[in-house]
Amino acid sequence: MDLGVCYYPEHWPEERWAVDAAQMRDTGLTRVRIGEFAWSRIEPEPGRFDWDWLDRAVETLHAAGLGIIMGTPTATPPKWLVDRMPDLVALDREGKPRGFGSRRHYCFSHEGYREEAARITRAVAERYGNHPGVVSWQTDNEYGCHDTVQSFSPAARDAFRKWLEKRYGSIDALSEAWGNVFWSMEYRSFDEIELPNLTVTEANPAHWLAFRRFSSDQVVSFNRAQVDILRECSPGRDITHNAMGFYTGYDHHDLAADLDVLGWDSYPLGFLEMFRFTEEEKRDYARQGHPDIAAFHHDLYRGCAKGGRWSVLEQQPGPVNWARHNPAPLPGMVRLWTLEAFAHGAELVSYFRWRQFPKAQEQMHAGLLRTDGEPAPALGEAREAAKDLAQIGSGGEAHKQAAIIFSYDAEWMTQIQPQGEGRSALWAAFATYSALRRLGLDVDILPPSADLEGYSLVVVPCLPIVPEKLARSLESFEGQIVIGPRTGSRTVDFAIPDNLPPGPLETLAGGRITLSESLSPRISIEGDDWTAGGWLDHYEGSATPEFVAADGTTCCWVNANVRLLAVWPEGSLLDEVILRAARDAGLPQEPLAKGKRHRRRGQTLFEFDYLKGTVNWRETAR
Amino acid sequence: MDLGVCYYPEHWPEERWAVDAAQMRDTGLTRVRIGEFAWSRIEPEPGRFDWDWLDRAVETLHAAGLGIIMGTPTATPPKWLVDRMPDLVALDREGKPRGFGSRRHYCFSHEGYREEAARITRAVAERYGNHPGVVSWQTDNEYGCHDTVQSFSPAARDAFRKWLEKRYGSIDALSEAWGNVFWSMEYRSFDEIELPNLTVTEANPAHWLAFRRFSSDQVVSFNRAQVDILRECSPGRDITHNAMGFYTGYDHHDLAADLDVLGWDSYPLGFLEMFRFTEEEKRDYARQGHPDIAAFHHDLYRGCAKGGRWSVLEQQPGPVNWARHNPAPLPGMVRLWTLEAFAHGAELVSYFRWRQFPKAQEQMHAGLLRTDGEPAPALGEAREAAKDLAQIGSGGEAHKQAAIIFSYDAEWMTQIQPQGEGRSALWAAFATYSALRRLGLDVDILPPSADLEGYSLVVVPCLPIVPEKLARSLESFEGQIVIGPRTGSRTVDFAIPDNLPPGPLETLAGGRITLSESLSPRISIEGDDWTAGGWLDHYEGSATPEFVAADGTTCCWVNANVRLLAVWPEGSLLDEVILRAARDAGLPQEPLAKGKRHRRRGQTLFEFDYLKGTVNWRETAR
Amino acid sequence: MDLGVCYYPEHWPEERWAVDAAQMRDTGLTRVRIGEFAWSRIEPEPGRFDWDWLDRAVETLHAAGLGIIMGTPTATPPKWLVDRMPDLVALDREGKPRGFGSRRHYCFSHEGYREEAARITRAVAERYGNHPGVVSWQTDNEYGCHDTVQSFSPAARDAFRKWLEKRYGSIDALSEAWGNVFWSMEYRSFDEIELPNLTVTEANPAHWLAFRRFSSDQVVSFNRAQVDILRECSPGRDITHNAMGFYTGYDHHDLAADLDVLGWDSYPLGFLEMFRFTEEEKRDYARQGHPDIAAFHHDLYRGCAKGGRWSVLEQQPGPVNWARHNPAPLPGMVRLWTLEAFAHGAELVSYFRWRQFPKAQEQMHAGLLRTDGEPAPALGEAREAAKDLAQIGSGGEAHKQAAIIFSYDAEWMTQIQPQGEGRSALWAAFATYSALRRLGLDVDILPPSADLEGYSLVVVPCLPIVPEKLARSLESFEGQIVIGPRTGSRTVDFAIPDNLPPGPLETLAGGRITLSESLSPRISIEGDDWTAGGWLDHYEGSATPEFVAADGTTCCWVNANVRLLAVWPEGSLLDEVILRAARDAGLPQEPLAKGKRHRRRGQTLFEFDYLKGTVNWRETAR
Repeated sequence: MDLGVCYYPEHWPEERWAVDAAQMRDTGLTRVRIGEFAWSRIEPEPGRFDWDWLDRAVETLHAAGLGIIMGTPTATPPKWLVDRMPDLVALDREGKPRGFGSRRHYCFSHEGYREEAARITRAVAERYGNHPGVVSWQTDNEYGCHDTVQSFSPAARDAFRKWLEKRYGSIDALSEAWGNVFWSMEYRSFDEIELPNLTVTEANPAHWLAFRRFSSDQVVSFNRAQVDILRECSPGRDITHNAMGFYTGYDHHDLAADLDVLGWDSYPLGFLEMFRFTEEEKRDYARQGHPDIAAFHHDLYRGCAKGGRWSVLEQQPGPVNWARHNPAPLPGMVRLWTLEAFAHGAELVSYFRWRQFPKAQEQMHAGLLRTDGEPAPALGEAREAAKDLAQIGSGGEAHKQAAIIFSYDAEWMTQIQPQGEGRSALWAAFATYSALRRLGLDVDILPPSADLEGYSLVVVPCLPIVPEKLARSLESFEGQIVIGPRTGSRTVDFAIPDNLPPGPLETLAGGRITLSESLSPRISIEGDDWTAGGWLDHYEGSATPEFVAADGTTCCWVNANVRLLAVWPEGSLLDEVILRAARDAGLPQEPLAKGKRHRRRGQTLFEFDYLKGTVNWRETAR
Repeated sequence: MDLGVCYYPEHWPEERWAVDAAQMRDTGLTRVRIGEFAWSRIEPEPGRFDWDWLDRAVETLHAAGLGIIMGTPTATPPKWLVDRMPDLVALDREGKPRGFGSRRHYCFSHEGYREEAARITRAVAERYGNHPGVVSWQTDNEYGCHDTVQSFSPAARDAFRKWLEKRYGSIDALSEAWGNVFWSMEYRSFDEIELPNLTVTEANPAHWLAFRRFSSDQVVSFNRAQVDILRECSPGRDITHNAMGFYTGYDHHDLAADLDVLGWDSYPLGFLEMFRFTEEEKRDYARQGHPDIAAFHHDLYRGCAKGGRWSVLEQQPGPVNWARHNPAPLPGMVRLWTLEAFAHGAELVSYFRWRQFPKAQEQMHAGLLRTDGEPAPALGEAREAAKDLAQIGSGGEAHKQAAIIFSYDAEWMTQIQPQGEGRSALWAAFATYSALRRLGLDVDILPPSADLEGYSLVVVPCLPIVPEKLARSLESFEGQIVIGPRTGSRTVDFAIPDNLPPGPLETLAGGRITLSESLSPRISIEGDDWTAGGWLDHYEGSATPEFVAADGTTCCWVNANVRLLAVWPEGSLLDEVILRAARDAGLPQEPLAKGKRHRRRGQTLFEFDYLKGTVNWRETAR
Repeated sequence: MDLGVCYYPEHWPEERWAVDAAQMRDTGLTRVRIGEFAWSRIEPEPGRFDWDWLDRAVETLHAAGLGIIMGTPTATPPKWLVDRMPDLVALDREGKPRGFGSRRHYCFSHEGYREEAARITRAVAERYGNHPGVVSWQTDNEYGCHDTVQSFSPAARDAFRKWLEKRYGSIDALSEAWGNVFWSMEYRSFDEIELPNLTVTEANPAHWLAFRRFSSDQVVSFNRAQVDILRECSPGRDITHNAMGFYTGYDHHDLAADLDVLGWDSYPLGFLEMFRFTEEEKRDYARQGHPDIAAFHHDLYRGCAKGGRWSVLEQQPGPVNWARHNPAPLPGMVRLWTLEAFAHGAELVSYFRWRQFPKAQEQMHAGLLRTDGEPAPALGEAREAAKDLAQIGSGGEAHKQAAIIFSYDAEWMTQIQPQGEGRSALWAAFATYSALRRLGLDVDILPPSADLEGYSLVVVPCLPIVPEKLARSLESFEGQIVIGPRTGSRTVDFAIPDNLPPGPLETLAGGRITLSESLSPRISIEGDDWTAGGWLDHYEGSATPEFVAADGTTCCWVNANVRLLAVWPEGSLLDEVILRAARDAGLPQEPLAKGKRHRRRGQTLFEFDYLKGTVNWRETAR
């Protein structure tokens, strides 16, 4: 695994570049990521390119022995371009333009901007595509950041209509598939279809799901256009992109299919603060992040990536600027995060950023160096991690133990139609992942199309659309299976299946869900030593009750090797069900103390202590 | 009382219609409500009508012996109509168009849409007006649902100006009535008047009140246009409309004046979750709804309806799709709700809907049948209720015991000018109703114009505008009277009366309110065994203190047969005041256990147990 | 000190004017404030002036011996003017026009409106400028009320571009100063710059700071135009304006530089309810207001005012209409507030308003008289206060004890970039002020440019931009100094200084802040008998730890006479630090009981008891 760092030579005096590069190497870094926001310096005026500075920066970094990850600057079209094409900006859900002045202001469906993005990508790729210092490419930056995948612009509307026509063929087919007879929403032509925002009450969930798919496809095709140019102009280099945390705006499986390596940006403290963790977790792990945040994404994105190649393109090195509160990591955490990425199989961990920039939006975002160029606390930890990695060596293969099935459309559907507030497929997956991890298990997070061969336990926490192939695959799976609520509850066009949920899993389930309730957090279903709630599926079939509450409610059913969870995957019942399934699967469980986590690579067992910020590794027999 | 069901033949294969109709009859249903959202099927293209399918549906249902309630489809103008008249859509308070893609997207003031609504109404009425199977008509659907009464469109602005000119005659009269000298808001002509949204800080409350009245009048006149056509084309049939729960967007007394029967849509579980009940109530009654939700609306709408004829046009049969959380009703509740409607004098309870539709917005809304056409739990309860009703017979007259005076402008005014957060006339009425009901009393909710003859106790919880006639009526009333805060505190144009509050009730009150405070929930006024708060009226006059707090604050005054509540009608003091007034009125009180409620028709006493979901009835001497 | 009252003759019948004037005098009032919202009565149609009524009103009030404070009516341009210049209205941050129908609907940058404002000001000034009854002028009313300083209109954008060009000279200088190379935000000309709203994520903080400064300057120049006219047409009269509570939308130091007297509007109960006080404070002081609310503003605005001349132009006399809840003041509070203003050096306390107006937006806002013209409770307290003042006499000089340094750009910067939610320079100043006051000290709140001569203790709670002059002034200051977090952390263009924070205070601090964290309220740093949190600065230098927490965290450092607070100025550690600094400064501390406060003028010590609503004064030796 390489260590690297994000660097913006355009922010610093040229005389500093060589100093910085030497210090990077001295720290143990071998990769440097540059160029991603530099459009206004590369092309300061329409058609006038200024390559000199970037040529020199590339040479300097290359000369120091750093491998360059070059970014395309398309996340920040400069003002002159916006002024030439004012309608390239996205419109938000309220119909307001999202103006220039920060970043990611473009609409993925704007044809003119697509041409400009291709033009600048080709210009950069032609300039540096065959440079020996350039080892890989990053397209754009954080697609979707600041909620930018969906645009409600005329350009998006027109593209959506074409996309729908291609998907459904005839307008009657679409009206039928969506059930538009309901509320007289039938269309006579694709030109009558609007975007689903600004309706009086909620639009048809099928309408929203189509728009989510379309919006995701627009990101994928936007990215693919850059990939095609880069492959043409820079053969032999890897192409990557940096995904984000707890973010599902586009289908990462689809995007990753066009990439060599899928990267992601790991900010455990910011994510802890901004996402749905409990007050207790936010307090206890304020300087560490919840112990499953980074690992969950490592395993998720490894499962998305073609050939399982993935990396951390941005690693938090200190306080950030964008969370509600921004504490510093506990000493040791930067090293711990780095080694945890290694333990999960990363090819690269790249710290963000080399040196804190004293101006503009991210002036309070720490780097490895302070604004004055002196070392920040993370620099020493990065150096230490580099030594650790040298000592550990290349690392063995991951173990196949438990797998979670997750799809992006699952999360879109639970967002579109939560039915009960906050019931999310993504967070069901996270809760399941955490329950498995707290047993000390290694977990893979797989798409519905994955091969289940070799796993002992498969959990499907919440997957409304179950492809037929997955249904057959589960039927023939001989390990233990846990199926969560809403799984198999919808057709591909967001309809309840004719045979009721779980639709294609009826055979596996030995029955049907005849009624589903969502329950507020006020309602707690009490078992012997567990509680459950959030949802309740009423089951009819041949399965037998396993966990039955004091009031007679069956919260989990068993049908041969399959457990059907009737309540929401969370809380102590989830722990019980996962524990029992793991036992039945013959998996070794080691319930871990608070804050402790394990991960194996080959013979090496890594032991992380999130409360203390420490990590150890040792060889094991297994 | 009839039982019925809402049915959408256009959602199902034609071969299923006769099967459904037979099963409806077999269940004990005699009414079927159809047609309300079918515009795109009736007129698939401008001017091209397709009656065949609806003719056959009507015949099939009629042949099965079901009486048809036919709806006009004006709540869902199809896309082709919106495209022809893009400005028919309403604008929201922020000025944004409320687009096509769900329902109720029209502006009540748009002349072009009014013509279209009349055209389609006439078309349907001419087609089926004299059909023997059609027993009544429903206009549109749920006027105001999704906050659609107020539109801030140019069409609304122009109509508002005309409405104001008609009401005030001269612009100087309006400026004077509204006190527009304040902040230089005086106008020189009606054409200068804007809608009251998007002002820098709050607009003149008189401006808002006028706009609320205007908006309500637009609904009433929109509805009347349909009523006129239906009376012309379908003589002898009742005309109804379905009102909603806890909804005050238009004046239901005014709307009901044009109808034969006022219907409403009863969803106790959704209302519990979405409205201002306590956490404890939301927990304890999650599967039942608060015991006064349905009854309050039964009694409110009976008081609105011409001749007291009312019905439940939609009755919740299982989980719905639109509340924050959507649990299933406790077994027995569908039957209980049905019998409670009967106990309060409903002509009809119509379940919504016959069969759950697996697509579009309401796919998670339960029906009497599941999506697969098999019986859902509610079907059996409907059948049981039908048998109960047959056993009970036709039912006797209601008893006159206690009356609550409520007007829609009261709620508008407390919304426009709450003075203390959340102080609402509607919820003051609900709290009062609940206090009376918990004493086992039968309650009527009456408009200010009502005849008070025969009642023993009249409560006016919060009525800012007191018509002179009501003042005189109360002065001559010999039973007990309770007057709540803000009553009589405003003129018809939202000014404080010259003689101070309670204005026209000064004689009745024996004095005046010289100062009013609103109190936050942090401030609790403590009495012997009661607490009070929320508001405090300072009274000067000849009444004597009745409830005096430890700190000397008088919370309730007595003047002969009149009690003046100085604090907000809520909590334990309200219970004490209501109890004492009921005793003084000679009413039999039976303080009921938690979750229990009573209602009498003639000699029959109905006993409801909301905790258990059971209902019993027995003959009584009284 | 004078007592006065706000009066709107245009609201009342002319025959009442003399009655009112006589009663004002009888109460002990000597000033009357009129005219501020009367444009539609002064100029009912474009160019047609109606002076007669106002002439008679002025004569009547003057004849009664009242000194008139005449307002310019520019806060309420009438509808005919808006219709002639529809684009004079401000646009809100979302880009929506802020329409006619209340007040303050104009954009400060609209040239046409500036001409109209000058025209009406000149008309009024020419009419009454030399009238012997007119003793002073008030410009406009409450600049910024309802968030009206910032306008996002085309007029504002154009003016902002010019303002930037003047400030930065060249566009490259601006791009460099703001660090616009970050995210390719560089401009090629000033015409490319947009307003900072509606960006995808946050705009550059330097961009926002410039816009805040510009917006403030627009208020100042708008006001100055009126001042210039008034000085020309009404020589010898004071000019004032009424500022607000906890309001920082424009730089009050800048505005006050053009005025003779700075006024402010004191509504302690409304401020308590609407601002960030604890639930306990809101409960305990619901009828009094927090004991430091009024005093803080008295001392703040005295520090802003040229020559220290200030007044209370509006004093709450009873319940208001605009807070979430609106209780009545405890009996005695109106007198207490009046005397507290005197104790802090006010020239005038003017009650708002004479008589409650029964119509329009403020109909629930109490006056000295009720709507029916009878005395409200405050009238008697005003009369009592007048007698007290006569008894006390003219009052001595204030004492110089402790000073707090506060600047408006500090608050803008903590709003623009809080880094930790809610970390505000204004509230840091308030907390510091309260800590000093609870020790019984007299406090001045000074601008960074102030002379520190004579003070024993200076506290700089949070001042990101420290002018060099202040740095030198503090270095030579011989009393005690307390420096709070973020002080000296930014350059004038919102960059982190080259030498790290505290920038120009490095010498004073004996070191640097190398890292800053913001901490959520969940994280409490525990000391012996104190707790701290909210923020944590990591210090490196020669200072010695003074307050060290159990976990070893240093929360306060000492370097000679300077204390460096590493945590947020709040809670019990702040009290400890202030106490120790006051002791070291040799100041007499008298820790006061809950609700008690002191203030000295000359030999007179005023003792306020906010829990009881009482005030006493006595001569002291000191």
